[in-house]
Amino acid sequence: MTTDFPVLQNDRLLRAAKGEEVDFVPVWVMRQAGRYLPEFRELRVEHDFFKICRTPELACEITLQPIRRFELDAAIIFSDILVVPQALGMKVEMKPGVGPVFDSPLVNPQHLDRLIIPDVKQELKYVFDAITLTRHKLEGKVPLIGFTGAPWTLMAYMIEGGGSKTQSKAKKWLYQHPEASHKLLKILTDVNVDYLVEQVRAGAQLLQVFESNAEYLGLREFKKFVLPTLIDINKRVKAKLQEEGLEQVPMTVFAKGGHFVLKELGESGYDVVGLDWTIEPQVGRQLAGDKVTLQGNLDPCALYAPADHLEDIVKEMAAKFGNNRWIANLGHGIYPDMDPESVKNFVTFIHKYTKSP
Amino acid sequence: MTTDFPVLQNDRLLRAAKGEEVDFVPVWVMRQAGRYLPEFRELRVEHDFFKICRTPELACEITLQPIRRFELDAAIIFSDILVVPQALGMKVEMKPGVGPVFDSPLVNPQHLDRLIIPDVKQELKYVFDAITLTRHKLEGKVPLIGFTGAPWTLMAYMIEGGGSKTQSKAKKWLYQHPEASHKLLKILTDVNVDYLVEQVRAGAQLLQVFESNAEYLGLREFKKFVLPTLIDINKRVKAKLQEEGLEQVPMTVFAKGGHFVLKELGESGYDVVGLDWTIEPQVGRQLAGDKVTLQGNLDPCALYAPADHLEDIVKEMAAKFGNNRWIANLGHGIYPDMDPESVKNFVTFIHKYTKSP
Repeated sequence: MTTDFPVLQNDRLLRAAKGEEVDFVPVWVMRQAGRYLPEFRELRVEHDFFKICRTPELACEITLQPIRRFELDAAIIFSDILVVPQALGMKVEMKPGVGPVFDSPLVNPQHLDRLIIPDVKQELKYVFDAITLTRHKLEGKVPLIGFTGAPWTLMAYMIEGGGSKTQSKAKKWLYQHPEASHKLLKILTDVNVDYLVEQVRAGAQLLQVFESNAEYLGLREFKKFVLPTLIDINKRVKAKLQEEGLEQVPMTVFAKGGHFVLKELGESGYDVVGLDWTIEPQVGRQLAGDKVTLQGNLDPCALYAPADHLEDIVKEMAAKFGNNRWIANLGHGIYPDMDPESVKNFVTFIHKYTKSP
Repeated sequence: MTTDFPVLQNDRLLRAAKGEEVDFVPVWVMRQAGRYLPEFRELRVEHDFFKICRTPELACEITLQPIRRFELDAAIIFSDILVVPQALGMKVEMKPGVGPVFDSPLVNPQHLDRLIIPDVKQELKYVFDAITLTRHKLEGKVPLIGFTGAPWTLMAYMIEGGGSKTQSKAKKWLYQHPEASHKLLKILTDVNVDYLVEQVRAGAQLLQVFESNAEYLGLREFKKFVLPTLIDINKRVKAKLQEEGLEQVPMTVFAKGGHFVLKELGESGYDVVGLDWTIEPQVGRQLAGDKVTLQGNLDPCALYAPADHLEDIVKEMAAKFGNNRWIANLGHGIYPDMDPESVKNFVTFIHKYTKSP
């Protein structure tokens, strides 16, 4: 497929990410292509979750669903962070009502030998094909975001074998097997670098790194094990893009629950730092500094509020963030039982309260 | 039973809570009477969880188990925060491998009518009896801590019907049913005030209020719904103790994940503010201010580390907290698969690195 794409008509997201002026603040929603949309659920009846990820036409269709409904300023490719452990040879299923379940989680450091270092271009080709197809189908309407799960977040899933309230098995590795932990994190960092570069080659216009499990760590372990991998990914992806003559794209890091590391993330080289809803906008700005764009951070549950109450909350949030260097979003992915009408209202209110005079 | 108790021999905890000098920093462990102890598991084989809570002799025995093993500076009465919803008429079971399960959670505001405002002295008499018995059996070795679950944390359980990764059902109430939420929180606040006062009457020497579900909220909803209940409880308990000629005892508030509200908690009137392990000690001190004692905050998973590594971590933590106005603890309850030897080491290292010159 050609990567000679239609001209981009709405570059608000990219301008905001680079710190340039915008007519109003761009807005998108984490997990915007998801279960809260009836047209998504309809497709899921027929198709397994990971089958959708692996079928470019289906992944593309789902990516476009929210773009057809709402005046969003970005699309994000439909995929899952666990395609990376799958590419390393691990079996993962998505069980309804449970979430992801690993067939054989990593129980001890010897199990690292099971991992197969993948030819990323080949093993994750289906993601790149989905990105290229979606770029064409978007017809330049909005930019397309690519993403990956950060090494610690993936490591935690690979050891826990699914979701966990404490991540105590994965954290136990950090305390009991520091060498094996570094080794696993290095494998995941290396794969992530290639994975993100190939997403750009395929057509991704911004990259987001999801450190969804930051909240389980304190500063000590985060600095020792996690922060270096995040810094490394940003640096190496950008160097490789240049080396290979590919376009530079802005990069976002979102460490959910990482309130204790916002200063470090602000200095990590990423263009955008995502905030969860527990961070007050002014506090986030003070900690992350003036050189990055902030993204977030409405409480996902605020979308349950009646429209007039949601409007008040969005207005207050917009006033706190200001119109510069901000990408509006939720502070975490949208929940499956949300009324799509609330997303529509959220987008409307963001545009209303961030319009430049 | 008489409340003429043996003389207290170790008042480090109480001195530290009041900001007085100590020879070394007092240490205890949240959930120290718990599943990680083989003698606890042995008792649990024969007795249901809530049966233990309701049987003063058993609750007392379990409270004493860690005191026999370790040089701890406090005991905490064995009980559960969910005895309060039970006292309000809700049925809760503790299901092995699952956690607490409510028979009929609150689904909508009409269900508030189901709640029975209890005669606290009568309905929770078993807790008060357990406290009195334990005070005698402790023979003044260490002080006895009483506790309760804070209103928002209890409300979340009562609506979710058990544990939840997002607490989105309970949070939905805050956004969709603000009046009913305030009403429920008020009921829980009132019951908590009586419950805590009666614990002191029965012999509790320090009271801890567990706001374990703080982390699911942002500052806006916390300030609107939750903070007033916490302030109210502290103020009313202290007033009522005075009114009834009971001894004033220090009060601790522990809002897990409440990094965004530490400043407010520092000014809330509580004597002690608990910190989870995501808060750096200096940041906690800066936010909570100089007028409170801090409690915490070792990552519970640090107890998985080999002894020499744990020693380094504890030494670093002790240096950061300093010897004044600090009660050493974990940043959350201890996990069931922990080696009791690690608790012993933790206590030893705290004493070693906080000894006054």
